[in-house]
Amino acid sequence: MTGPAEPTVEALRQRLVHFAAARRWEPFHTPKNLAAALSVEAGELLEIFQWLTPEQADAVMSDPERAHRVHDEVADVLAYLLQFCTAVGVDPLEALAAKIERNELRFPVPMDAVDAGENGVGVNSDVDDQPL
Amino acid sequence: MTGPAEPTVEALRQRLVHFAAARRWEPFHTPKNLAAALSVEAGELLEIFQWLTPEQADAVMSDPERAHRVHDEVADVLAYLLQFCTAVGVDPLEALAAKIERNELRFPVPMDAVDAGENGVGVNSDVDDQPL
Amino acid sequence: MTGPAEPTVEALRQRLVHFAAARRWEPFHTPKNLAAALSVEAGELLEIFQWLTPEQADAVMSDPERAHRVHDEVADVLAYLLQFCTAVGVDPLEALAAKIERNELRFPVPMDAVDAGENGVGVNSDVDDQPL
Amino acid sequence: MTGPAEPTVEALRQRLVHFAAARRWEPFHTPKNLAAALSVEAGELLEIFQWLTPEQADAVMSDPERAHRVHDEVADVLAYLLQFCTAVGVDPLEALAAKIERNELRFPVPMDAVDAGENGVGVNSDVDDQPL
Repeated sequence: MTGPAEPTVEALRQRLVHFAAARRWEPFHTPKNLAAALSVEAGELLEIFQWLTPEQADAVMSDPERAHRVHDEVADVLAYLLQFCTAVGVDPLEALAAKIERNELRFPVPMDAVDAGENGVGVNSDVDDQPL
Repeated sequence: MTGPAEPTVEALRQRLVHFAAARRWEPFHTPKNLAAALSVEAGELLEIFQWLTPEQADAVMSDPERAHRVHDEVADVLAYLLQFCTAVGVDPLEALAAKIERNELRFPVPMDAVDAGENGVGVNSDVDDQPL
Repeated sequence: MTGPAEPTVEALRQRLVHFAAARRWEPFHTPKNLAAALSVEAGELLEIFQWLTPEQADAVMSDPERAHRVHDEVADVLAYLLQFCTAVGVDPLEALAAKIERNELRFPVPMDAVDAGENGVGVNSDVDDQPL
Repeated sequence: MTGPAEPTVEALRQRLVHFAAARRWEPFHTPKNLAAALSVEAGELLEIFQWLTPEQADAVMSDPERAHRVHDEVADVLAYLLQFCTAVGVDPLEALAAKIERNELRFPVPMDAVDAGENGVGVNSDVDDQPL
């Protein structure tokens, strides 16, 4: 999924720091404001899908205008997430790695999935409480 | 901000793919559902801050219980963002790099910031339309 | 849909004012905090539906536990909307009436719907921009 | 806060039903889609406030352009809340009245507030768990 010149999360995070500093936007980048902005942008991503049928939603990237909006809103969500992490001093990759480890204990792989392979039926009944 | 064993975004993305596959949660991971889940988790991050004063919000990480919740919700937001990107085939790092480049053209650094250095006053008047 | 003792919006709004005043919560009820809280609660309503198929979602009220959560989250969203309106001095019913009037001009009823009655096909092609 | 010709919630709800029916938008108005749309609109209301200082946010209605947006987004949130309630058969006013009654038991008025009147200090320490 990635090309040779793939930027790292840390490089992008620092680029956003410089971008905001050059424009003197740092006073606005409080944890509370950035958490609000992240939520607003996640809403804009959802907006693309709100009236689509499941079938239309699954084919969203075959519509060039919608595909562009998806790229744009993914970028905005990630930007505000990284800026929020800068503001509170959290490493998002470490936070996610730790969470996956907790969830591997909390949601063990069901035995029928291990045993049954392709014959397995159904999904984890805990899906209401599905974490990831 | 990162340690020596820092996981990459791509490694975490693949780990989430395996996590969901082992639990047979893939049928739930449609683009529309994941966009909704991302928005819900961004709301849970915002919930931590909703009644805090700006001062309390800036000190959020000095409260151990709130700091834990922040780590947890950052992880959830990033998890759903990566799973959404898997579902639609978007590279989030490339999307963000492209967006930063567009925004560097759209929001040029104000000349008074370049000239004035520490004496510069005020902020970009375009902040209502602030992208990142 | 309403019983004989139906409370009015204005009576509920005032009851919420007294509820917050008695508990000295007014300092928290700034427009910005209440807009955040409204968004958080709307996310909690959406959370009920995030993993449901369209069929499960349509039958949400036949599950007593989900039905209770729906009532609860509808109440929370309306509570914060009314408290937000108190904080900014907006009458929500007048605002909606005015918006419906604007939208009746902006989205005229398509002629084929008027003419064709049951034979009409399709939906308004402006649905991407659907307001209400 | 209300004029003589104040519309009722029930009248507005029915007007929205007719508006959608005339435009054949009913197939889109599933509970899941409407919960998503409600969340998106609540995000648009929050967007108005995301970069404002508390002082700017408190004065939001003195800026005509922002005041217009506030009216518009309040209307959209209420519209989708009423359409959601139509789709699931919930009376929002009854739901809120029932919730206020539950919260009056859950969050009793602190005795120092009752006794101390204007001399009372501090706020309810349960505010992290503040419901309304």
